Amino acid sequence: MFLPRQVHLTLPPWVDELVDDTRRFVTDEERVGLAVALAARNIEHGFGGPFGAAVFNADGRVVSVGVNRVVPQTCSVAHAEMLAYMSAQQRLASYRLNAAGGRYTLATSAQPCCQCYGATMWAGIDELLIGARSEDVEALAHFDEGPLPTDWIGELEKRGITVRRDILRAEARAVLADYGARGEVY
Amino acid sequence: MFLPRQVHLTLPPWVDELVDDTRRFVTDEERVGLAVALAARNIEHGFGGPFGAAVFNADGRVVSVGVNRVVPQTCSVAHAEMLAYMSAQQRLASYRLNAAGGRYTLATSAQPCCQCYGATMWAGIDELLIGARSEDVEALAHFDEGPLPTDWIGELEKRGITVRRDILRAEARAVLADYGARGEVY
Repeated sequence: MFLPRQVHLTLPPWVDELVDDTRRFVTDEERVGLAVALAARNIEHGFGGPFGAAVFNADGRVVSVGVNRVVPQTCSVAHAEMLAYMSAQQRLASYRLNAAGGRYTLATSAQPCCQCYGATMWAGIDELLIGARSEDVEALAHFDEGPLPTDWIGELEKRGITVRRDILRAEARAVLADYGARGEVY
Repeated sequence: MFLPRQVHLTLPPWVDELVDDTRRFVTDEERVGLAVALAARNIEHGFGGPFGAAVFNADGRVVSVGVNRVVPQTCSVAHAEMLAYMSAQQRLASYRLNAAGGRYTLATSAQPCCQCYGATMWAGIDELLIGARSEDVEALAHFDEGPLPTDWIGELEKRGITVRRDILRAEARAVLADYGARGEVY
C-alpha cells in the first residue's frame, strides 16, 4: 500500500550553538530574547520564516526550541511554536506539558497565527510570552496570521494560560522588517 | 547539547488494511465515510481519540489519512487532520497541497478543533467535508473543541475553501457516542 505513515520533522543543527543550557532565563525579556534570536538566525540561514519560539520550565531552563521550518520540511504545520510544543512533549513524554505539575512557558517572537493559537490551547503551558503583534507580522513580513476569536486572550486565560505581550517588541519587529525587506513570503 | 531536534510521528499499521487504493471516493458520503471508518477503527484499537480524516485528490484517490495519535505519540498536535495534512504534504513534497494546481479535499469525521481549524487555513485544500458537529464532539465524547472565530465558515471561504457539513452525521455521532460511553477523554 502506498499510504504515507510517517512524518519526520527536524530542527536545524545550529539551534544547539545558540542555546546555552547552563543558563537560567528568568525574565520575560530573556525568554522572548531567545525566541527573537532564533528567528533572526533562521532568516540568516535563509531557509524559513522569521519566527522562533522556546519552551521554558519553572526554573527558566530551556526545554525545547522551535523555528519556522515550513519550506525545508514541506510542511505547513512546521511553525516555530508547533515544533517547540511537539519536541518538548516528546522530551517529557507527556502530551500536556504541565500534566505532572510544574509550570511551563512558551516564549514566541511573534503572536501565534490561528494554527499555533489553537495548538496553544492543548499544549499544557501556563504562560504565553509574545514579542511582535500580529499587525507587525502582517505589515512587515506580509504573512496572513489568520482569524482568531474576538476575545483571543480571554479564551486562553479561561484555560489557565496567562498572556503577556509587547515584550522586546521593537527587536522582534526588526527581524520581521529584515525578512520583509527581502521581498519573500517563504 | 540536550535540545530535542527531531519529532517523529507515525500512523498505525492497520490504516493500510482499511484503505483501498484502487478505489475512487467520489461522493461526499464516500469520503466522510472513510474518515468515520478510520475513527471507528482507532477506538477499536483502544489507543487514541475517536477521530479520523483523509485527504483526497481531484480524482477521488486517497492521498493520505490521519487518526488521532495524541496518546501514543505523546503529542497534543497529533490530531487526525494534522497527520493527514502533514503526511499528504510530505508525499507531494509541497507545503501547500494545491500549490501546483489540482484540487484537494479534506474529509474529517468531526468538525476540526481550534488547532486543526487554523491548520486548515495553511494546508492548501479546496474543500472541507465534515461529519459530526463540534457540539456532538463536546456532548458525546466530552472533548473541548476550543474557541473559533464567530464566522468560522466564512473565514475559510474567504481563503478559497468550501465547507460542507453534516455529512453522515448520524454515523459520525455514533462513533463519538461509543467512545464517550467508555468514560475516557484520552
